[in-house]
Amino acid sequence: MNSATTPTKTTKPELASEGTKNANGLSKKMKALVYYGHGKKSWEEKPTPVIQNNTDVIVKIIKTTICGTDLHILKGDVPAVTAGRILGHEGVGIVEEAGSAVTGFKKGDHVIISCITSCGKCVYCKRSMYSHCVNGGWILGHLIDGTQAEYVRIPYADNSLYHIPEGSDEEALVMLSDILPTGFECGVLNGKVQPGNTVAIVGSGPIGLAALLTAQFYSPAEIIMIDPDDNRLKTAKKFGATKTINNSKENAIERVKELTGGIGVDTAIEAVGIPTTFELCQSLVAPGGIIANIGVHGKSVELHLETLWSRNIAITTRLVDTVTTSMLLKTVQSKKLDPKLLITHRFKSSDIIKAYDVFGHAAKENALKVILTND
Amino acid sequence: MNSATTPTKTTKPELASEGTKNANGLSKKMKALVYYGHGKKSWEEKPTPVIQNNTDVIVKIIKTTICGTDLHILKGDVPAVTAGRILGHEGVGIVEEAGSAVTGFKKGDHVIISCITSCGKCVYCKRSMYSHCVNGGWILGHLIDGTQAEYVRIPYADNSLYHIPEGSDEEALVMLSDILPTGFECGVLNGKVQPGNTVAIVGSGPIGLAALLTAQFYSPAEIIMIDPDDNRLKTAKKFGATKTINNSKENAIERVKELTGGIGVDTAIEAVGIPTTFELCQSLVAPGGIIANIGVHGKSVELHLETLWSRNIAITTRLVDTVTTSMLLKTVQSKKLDPKLLITHRFKSSDIIKAYDVFGHAAKENALKVILTND
Amino acid sequence: MNSATTPTKTTKPELASEGTKNANGLSKKMKALVYYGHGKKSWEEKPTPVIQNNTDVIVKIIKTTICGTDLHILKGDVPAVTAGRILGHEGVGIVEEAGSAVTGFKKGDHVIISCITSCGKCVYCKRSMYSHCVNGGWILGHLIDGTQAEYVRIPYADNSLYHIPEGSDEEALVMLSDILPTGFECGVLNGKVQPGNTVAIVGSGPIGLAALLTAQFYSPAEIIMIDPDDNRLKTAKKFGATKTINNSKENAIERVKELTGGIGVDTAIEAVGIPTTFELCQSLVAPGGIIANIGVHGKSVELHLETLWSRNIAITTRLVDTVTTSMLLKTVQSKKLDPKLLITHRFKSSDIIKAYDVFGHAAKENALKVILTND
Amino acid sequence: MNSATTPTKTTKPELASEGTKNANGLSKKMKALVYYGHGKKSWEEKPTPVIQNNTDVIVKIIKTTICGTDLHILKGDVPAVTAGRILGHEGVGIVEEAGSAVTGFKKGDHVIISCITSCGKCVYCKRSMYSHCVNGGWILGHLIDGTQAEYVRIPYADNSLYHIPEGSDEEALVMLSDILPTGFECGVLNGKVQPGNTVAIVGSGPIGLAALLTAQFYSPAEIIMIDPDDNRLKTAKKFGATKTINNSKENAIERVKELTGGIGVDTAIEAVGIPTTFELCQSLVAPGGIIANIGVHGKSVELHLETLWSRNIAITTRLVDTVTTSMLLKTVQSKKLDPKLLITHRFKSSDIIKAYDVFGHAAKENALKVILTND
Repeated sequence: MNSATTPTKTTKPELASEGTKNANGLSKKMKALVYYGHGKKSWEEKPTPVIQNNTDVIVKIIKTTICGTDLHILKGDVPAVTAGRILGHEGVGIVEEAGSAVTGFKKGDHVIISCITSCGKCVYCKRSMYSHCVNGGWILGHLIDGTQAEYVRIPYADNSLYHIPEGSDEEALVMLSDILPTGFECGVLNGKVQPGNTVAIVGSGPIGLAALLTAQFYSPAEIIMIDPDDNRLKTAKKFGATKTINNSKENAIERVKELTGGIGVDTAIEAVGIPTTFELCQSLVAPGGIIANIGVHGKSVELHLETLWSRNIAITTRLVDTVTTSMLLKTVQSKKLDPKLLITHRFKSSDIIKAYDVFGHAAKENALKVILTND
Repeated sequence: MNSATTPTKTTKPELASEGTKNANGLSKKMKALVYYGHGKKSWEEKPTPVIQNNTDVIVKIIKTTICGTDLHILKGDVPAVTAGRILGHEGVGIVEEAGSAVTGFKKGDHVIISCITSCGKCVYCKRSMYSHCVNGGWILGHLIDGTQAEYVRIPYADNSLYHIPEGSDEEALVMLSDILPTGFECGVLNGKVQPGNTVAIVGSGPIGLAALLTAQFYSPAEIIMIDPDDNRLKTAKKFGATKTINNSKENAIERVKELTGGIGVDTAIEAVGIPTTFELCQSLVAPGGIIANIGVHGKSVELHLETLWSRNIAITTRLVDTVTTSMLLKTVQSKKLDPKLLITHRFKSSDIIKAYDVFGHAAKENALKVILTND
Repeated sequence: MNSATTPTKTTKPELASEGTKNANGLSKKMKALVYYGHGKKSWEEKPTPVIQNNTDVIVKIIKTTICGTDLHILKGDVPAVTAGRILGHEGVGIVEEAGSAVTGFKKGDHVIISCITSCGKCVYCKRSMYSHCVNGGWILGHLIDGTQAEYVRIPYADNSLYHIPEGSDEEALVMLSDILPTGFECGVLNGKVQPGNTVAIVGSGPIGLAALLTAQFYSPAEIIMIDPDDNRLKTAKKFGATKTINNSKENAIERVKELTGGIGVDTAIEAVGIPTTFELCQSLVAPGGIIANIGVHGKSVELHLETLWSRNIAITTRLVDTVTTSMLLKTVQSKKLDPKLLITHRFKSSDIIKAYDVFGHAAKENALKVILTND
Repeated sequence: MNSATTPTKTTKPELASEGTKNANGLSKKMKALVYYGHGKKSWEEKPTPVIQNNTDVIVKIIKTTICGTDLHILKGDVPAVTAGRILGHEGVGIVEEAGSAVTGFKKGDHVIISCITSCGKCVYCKRSMYSHCVNGGWILGHLIDGTQAEYVRIPYADNSLYHIPEGSDEEALVMLSDILPTGFECGVLNGKVQPGNTVAIVGSGPIGLAALLTAQFYSPAEIIMIDPDDNRLKTAKKFGATKTINNSKENAIERVKELTGGIGVDTAIEAVGIPTTFELCQSLVAPGGIIANIGVHGKSVELHLETLWSRNIAITTRLVDTVTTSMLLKTVQSKKLDPKLLITHRFKSSDIIKAYDVFGHAAKENALKVILTND
């Protein structure tokens, strides 16, 4: 995840009371995962966040996770992230304090934190394009401090948090912060998956699997999963893929043609983010079909307009808007979706460095998403 | 225009009667523009077409025109066109004879010939993607003989011809064979032009102007026309462009940013077909916007996914389906659209070589569309 | 089902050869269920149909069924059906003979017969509104002889028949002639059922259950089935209803409010066809919701615009277009849909009078759809 | 306009300072049009409003108008309006004071006041159904004091006000508070008016004319205006109607059939609000068409499902959401829409009683919208 948004206007933080407690009674210090430039991070003490604007909420983090984007940041790929930043843009927690303009949340409420902050009043928010909110967008763990901590400040809380229904499995709901809306909105909705259709998903990592899980909401006839890792394909099969192709061993284009009567797929979902996989999608899509890009790309790709110009296709891109969070929550509650399938490892927050290590070697560790729990 | 369609299955032609007349009373010979390979064409005698399948109609051509695609064919860019082929895929005429399975047309009916042949029963026709009809698509003047002749055979006539309402200006309706549906379907409909929106059209040739004329059906706030030729921009202004940019003299990206509050356009329509113009569109489109490609591309282009991946855009391609021909006819009849604006030159068919010459130097000749009339 | 269509133009039937065989080698006589006015029907000898237009196909019926509409006809509710008419508009069979203009089907092909005949070339067919085809629509067993017979003539066969994939369970596919596309198109598609949404289906008869089965393609959070018969509700529960309400014992409005947090349902599907059930739907639908009518209504209903005018709702009606037959076939092949669930009784065609009796007392007999098999 | 919304939660008003001025420097008293029950109203002194919540803005009204709904209130048709209420839900003005949580507006800003108040964060606002905002909706001049006054308090100002671009004709923009979005959203958008289509608008009063003006954004082939008043039809003709029918003199059903080749219209817009006109729409709509209701209905109507059930139509209702206000503003700025056409009379606010009288006899006075100007 990345974004060109500028930091929100902030007012002066409330004057901290003296002593070891903030005005709201919280300890002045907390533990957090801090980024210190290329490859450097540390689990260390940081000031506990305080309300800065009356639309803020302070959330005590119960559980959080690590995103592929966090690894990108650590590689130095996201220069907007500066040294000293607390990482993380996912998590569930409990409201500790709410600003005076917040009407939807109060101390004690259990909440899902959206990876996208939405002011609810700018031109993009009014078009349901929260990803491009001029006051928010992706800012958590990017332009402001994030969720891999004991506490986090959430701006525009009324539009950026979601109530957790009583009796929910809160761990599972961490998957609603980012990965499931991303797979669903960028892959499945943009890809217009429909009953009876054929879908290919290129990339069977966590995000491709999130697309796979949510594509099944629409009962496509075939979901063909393509990846060079047999373990990941085995997982895909378990998660509902009707066919799998190991494209390090097989010719994916030929196999997909075989499986689709020579025509190609109605929807090709790119869930990797490199030129080869995007080019593959161009060869898989049928006339009249859609290539829905989810991958975060670092380079330009070659677009074969010399053949595609006449094939009536569409290519879509999207930074997740998290406009479907409530809807996804309903599908979880009604058991149409089991987010827990994506969770493979669990750590205490104090072991976050180890968790990063496991997640950073996801293929070797058979890791999808890791859960970090604060004590 | 180009297409990967295969020739329709044809049955044996009716046995021609002896003498100088066909069974249907037509002279056995007619004049036609015949392609003979790279750069070679001739206005010469050819056999008058006869009914081959019971869904065919023979149309006596009244008026036809030349398309940019015909120039491409003459450059050898469309290898499927073989020597001896009669060119042309546009025109109006009068039904001379109808096959036994044709129910919608009879001798004497005045008709618009669609550039796309549609069988009405294949999987693509049922999805309203006539361009990919497995029995038709673009075949006229491509895989079967075309309309730059005195007579033409139209397969699947019930789905490929349109009745001309009495009292119509038939010359104007030649523009409904290809150019207006192409500009409208590939540019305006795919580009989702909406009231109050901003549109940039890159390329102010005939097809860009067709998009300009039909974009106005939806009352966008701004239509910015971009072209390196001042004459063409002057025409664009006359046809309804709200702003024009000569991109050989001005920085189009900066100017569009200025005109759109720094955001870019909701819809960028590519109406040229070369890498530079498609790249320009990528720089013009706003977050949440659409790039609608009309241009026929001969090469791949660079797609800047490294910036576009997060911008929530769509890119669409399309070979015209001519699904809007009836609707466009209604807009002509109700005077919402004046196709005649596109006609700049008129010739007798016997002067077709001269007409090709003028159309081949369109910029110099200030030519848009030329009309060829049979005596 | 009902319709205002006029009979198709027919040409003279082929001259029957003398003796006991038709030109195509079929026996001149067959058995069929013939309507003789209010309440009167007979299983008796009728002439075997012959090709009348070159777009016709003669199908040997393997299996057919009885529709609620057939009962309506027998009650005299459909005056366009005249004495002597062979009833039935559903079935699967084998092509016996194909007219000369038919390209998609040949002798020996196994086919599903659509209840809607589509010419593929009129203004409505081009809009995918086959139900209103000016040359077809619902005509089988209505304006021309139908499928409750040993043979049937299918006009416009290329657009009105569907190939049965090898290895299919043909009995199950009888459900694709009418009931499943009807429940899906009129109820589920018109009702815009979406993941996470709440749906109420009023009426748990065969058509309501067809809507229930196909609504699940879209993973709604809740499907609440409402009917006064506990047996039918038990079936609904088995078929995937998340909640059931017996509205002869419970207040359906109050119960639905309880189940939806006081708001009502996103989609209310009317699957009965009487004023009371349509009025109930008006009380169940949430602001912003849709009432999708499937029921065949014999009387006007009261529409409460005095409350609904400001509630941002839509009400839709539809005669099934059978535009989703191919898509439904794919969902059957990929096991997303099991049409066989709807079949409760099986008879030989010679026992059709008994089959009508059972189907006419469906509630008592616990009957959904009955299958009739020709020897 | 009406609505079932409950009053917004309000906090204690700021303590008024002593003397004749409020804390914000405004005079403590202002003039306003106050409702006193059935038929009773008075232009009199009322306390100047003060900020109650930090999302409020106080607007000094420059120009306002009277709505048909205000006449309904005075007839006692809207019981939620209690004696002492200041009426009015339209107007333009200047921000006088902004609450501390308001970020989009500040003192001195020129603004359009939307008739619909939107909190921007409830479930309906997130679905762009501002009309059903659980904290707002239609409350101005209904559940809280309105705009027919010198000052008005606007809750949730960030989502309920729109900036007036410099150099605009502010009087014209009063038409963007309610009447133009209502005609456009409820009539034109819900009615899916399309290029080449046929539209009938039943009712040529201000709201029907607003639909007529905005329907032209989409270039329909025909807009047939139906009304019993020749003067109003003359206006309709001037505003762009292609045909007019005086249904007190002519049979509107027969005339529309004549004008549409016997088929009826694609879109029928109901702009009156009584059973007769809604029934008329049912007779005018073609198969596949839409009846878009704008009228405020006081009684139920008869819905002819016995004929409509099979005609594939949709009926829509809507309380204006004002989601198109920004877009309409762009069409005004780009001269695609001239709202001023709707203004026929102008008064000083102190003459509001006389203005009500003229507007209350609109037909006789040839009145459409009246403008009231504060000194």
